[in-house]
Amino acid sequence: MVKPILENCICELLHSSLPNYCIRIADLGCSSGPNTFSAVLSIIENIDKACHTMNYEPLPIIQVFLNDLFGNDFNTVFKALPNFYEKLEIENGRKYGSCLIAAMPGSFYGRLFPKNSMHFLHSSYSLHWLSQVPDGLVSASGIPMNKGSIYIEKSSPPIVHQPYLQQFTQDFTMFLKMRYEELVPHGHLLLTIVGKNEEIDGPHVLNLLGMVLNDMVVEGHLEEEKLDNFNIPQYTPSIDEIRSIIQKEGSFKLLHLETFKLQLDASFPEDHDHAENDARAAYVATYIRAVFEPILASHFGNTIMGDLFQRFAKKIAKLLQMGKGIVNNLVISLAKECEN
Amino acid sequence: MVKPILENCICELLHSSLPNYCIRIADLGCSSGPNTFSAVLSIIENIDKACHTMNYEPLPIIQVFLNDLFGNDFNTVFKALPNFYEKLEIENGRKYGSCLIAAMPGSFYGRLFPKNSMHFLHSSYSLHWLSQVPDGLVSASGIPMNKGSIYIEKSSPPIVHQPYLQQFTQDFTMFLKMRYEELVPHGHLLLTIVGKNEEIDGPHVLNLLGMVLNDMVVEGHLEEEKLDNFNIPQYTPSIDEIRSIIQKEGSFKLLHLETFKLQLDASFPEDHDHAENDARAAYVATYIRAVFEPILASHFGNTIMGDLFQRFAKKIAKLLQMGKGIVNNLVISLAKECEN
Repeated sequence: MVKPILENCICELLHSSLPNYCIRIADLGCSSGPNTFSAVLSIIENIDKACHTMNYEPLPIIQVFLNDLFGNDFNTVFKALPNFYEKLEIENGRKYGSCLIAAMPGSFYGRLFPKNSMHFLHSSYSLHWLSQVPDGLVSASGIPMNKGSIYIEKSSPPIVHQPYLQQFTQDFTMFLKMRYEELVPHGHLLLTIVGKNEEIDGPHVLNLLGMVLNDMVVEGHLEEEKLDNFNIPQYTPSIDEIRSIIQKEGSFKLLHLETFKLQLDASFPEDHDHAENDARAAYVATYIRAVFEPILASHFGNTIMGDLFQRFAKKIAKLLQMGKGIVNNLVISLAKECEN
Repeated sequence: MVKPILENCICELLHSSLPNYCIRIADLGCSSGPNTFSAVLSIIENIDKACHTMNYEPLPIIQVFLNDLFGNDFNTVFKALPNFYEKLEIENGRKYGSCLIAAMPGSFYGRLFPKNSMHFLHSSYSLHWLSQVPDGLVSASGIPMNKGSIYIEKSSPPIVHQPYLQQFTQDFTMFLKMRYEELVPHGHLLLTIVGKNEEIDGPHVLNLLGMVLNDMVVEGHLEEEKLDNFNIPQYTPSIDEIRSIIQKEGSFKLLHLETFKLQLDASFPEDHDHAENDARAAYVATYIRAVFEPILASHFGNTIMGDLFQRFAKKIAKLLQMGKGIVNNLVISLAKECEN
């Protein structure tokens, strides 16, 4: 779904920024794993393709910055680089030294790059993470406002929804301001994030995790207070909320804003019809565990993680069977507006 | 010894490159440890000092690239960054976001940065490492030419010295060519490396290591063949060799070329007169072990490392007692010559 938008972005970008000896790109929230280079590879391929189409030679040098938090495992990323460079040379004809991959650690809610230096900034499945747990979810006197939940529920009062939306608005606005400064004139920003689930789509993953934690409290495996005091620093906005924040911030031209639905098990490697529902549910539980275990374990402890995600897999299995295992995604493409 | 030259370099650099919104610097061969940020900190402090002297405000943004091989432990470096940024703000008044520290992994014998993008490139105690063990130290029929040694000895025939000098010439020339492309016009290069020991200075650390390995062969703790087939990929040039390579390469203007001697135990933390000779020797053996253990252990195995460095410490103790524990250093400062 994102590929044609990426292709479009790169084409537009190169039309306004070529001839240029060096194109600077970044992947914000690159993580560390088998997919770390996939966005970068797509971007490089699209740049090369657009240059070929425009008969632009020689290919520009591409300087890449991989960004994630200070604690990200960049060592593993760097050890995979020689292989990546080799593949790039063999499969893409990109000579060693024509693509220079660096890392820029730090929060993308702060400054990462010099002013007017970056051509294309990409971020996939990272911007729904907030800079902190929203203030106000625990009252001044210490009373939890979001008892029994770890995120916003359908039944949540405004006192829960408001702090989340406010934190997201503040963070996303800051993100846009920082990136605007860092981009060259006509530079592009392409973002994919998890969006709000519509009622027809079924429950949100975070609500499912909350339900499991609640079950564990009811069955006496977890202290109620532990659950009441935990709120996840993530917010999945609606398309209207995103549009409104971008408009209020005001510096970017909104090129695309779309939602697309994905099944939770869309990346399951086997053929759809032949796979057991439980195997798919286990697969979904495993990748969601990889995302959420660090933050859950640091609050609830390591010992309950096995039980938690086994229960979670069962809930996912039911959901998949009902055809309700859907994630709503938002894809947003923006360009730096310039006076001239 | 290097500090006044660094100060000079930065002054000259800023005179030719200010006003500039962003100064890009790199530390090549930054390693990972308590000293990783010390060169960068010195450079930042000198930039700020020069800007104050020149009444240049606001201070330029500094983009830093820390470079070392793909296998360097950058995770540890990145985890220390929040503290470094905080100290920079408190002690140097450099606001968060005014100094942006990235990592660029890879060999400095290849391309690291886009053309004409870097203002100041620094490298300390890294450039005596060669890109590979020189060819020719083992004959075509597999006969070792440097039997009983791991480096060039005083008694070594030209057949040993030649391949080392040739490899260093090739590597250092490539290094200069790469850096010339990456530097902006009038950009500066400041290098400190270990140089050749004069006869009066006493034996070279690599020769001492070779002597210990030889003793272990004689005593039957090590196979002779293992030693005969090992040659260290390091070369410590003379000042004349360095000057000649720079002149032949021809693109840089040589600003400074000096040697300075340091005692092996110069960085020993206690007061000179009160410290035991053995404690100093143990200190020297420990830091030299940190440098050479990885490459020695991968050839000779881990099991003999303890014995090896205990013997080495004894040799160092004798040397220190004789006042012969000296390292010769070369400091080289170069500027990118420009036609206009």
